[in-house]
Amino acid sequence: MSDHETIFDKILAGEIPCHRVYEDDHVLAFLDVNPLSHGHTLVIPKQRGAFLHQLSDDAAAALGRVLPRLCRAVMQATGATAYNLLQNNGRQAHQEVMHVHFHIIPRHGADGLGVGWSAGQLDHGKAPELLAKLHRALAEDADV
Amino acid sequence: MSDHETIFDKILAGEIPCHRVYEDDHVLAFLDVNPLSHGHTLVIPKQRGAFLHQLSDDAAAALGRVLPRLCRAVMQATGATAYNLLQNNGRQAHQEVMHVHFHIIPRHGADGLGVGWSAGQLDHGKAPELLAKLHRALAEDADV
Repeated sequence: MSDHETIFDKILAGEIPCHRVYEDDHVLAFLDVNPLSHGHTLVIPKQRGAFLHQLSDDAAAALGRVLPRLCRAVMQATGATAYNLLQNNGRQAHQEVMHVHFHIIPRHGADGLGVGWSAGQLDHGKAPELLAKLHRALAEDADV
Repeated sequence: MSDHETIFDKILAGEIPCHRVYEDDHVLAFLDVNPLSHGHTLVIPKQRGAFLHQLSDDAAAALGRVLPRLCRAVMQATGATAYNLLQNNGRQAHQEVMHVHFHIIPRHGADGLGVGWSAGQLDHGKAPELLAKLHRALAEDADV
């Protein structure tokens, strides 16, 4: 777990203001100041961690629990009927602030998240080898 | 909540096979057969619902709870150090199967999710009006 302080720590501490949408003991949601579309909202855990895989089970559950409610509110408040939920991990995956954050990005016509989708075909013959690695990783995970 | 049956219902019912990564009482994870990159994994709730905003709090919490663990496994099994979590809602937002699904998409060099990011600036003067709508929507939400 990184000890590096980010701008989100300052927001959580109240040192930098935000347009607060929602807050509970584990989660804060606020408007993105550089929105991709009207209503673009960030949802962050209060637990500090750069990446989703660093969150505790409980912190991740608390965040997951409020997502449907927040998505309903964003749609109702903006009139959007479609939206993307995106969470980036690592510079190579377009992460900019090194504190876990989920983007709720409403789609309004052309405004919203641009998605590039260059899909391949799963090699079913090689899938068992990958699955074996995944199952071993899960079995060895201390949190299981 | 839609009663429309999707291919994921058939997978959940065991009528169509999948490369199963993980399963518990509330969640199933399996390899995407049209991966964007090696290790591309889908995580779905067993509760039927087309969109994230239709999930129960408990179903969303159960799904959130296993995400860190699954992300760790995908990284360990594939060697990826960066990844995106994406969940699309609505045809306009690139959703293809009308059952909630979270994509865990590892980044391997150029392989992975293409992200188009055309960000604007939040109009801070108009933010209070949007916030008021969001707060009203949350207050009126039956699940609160």
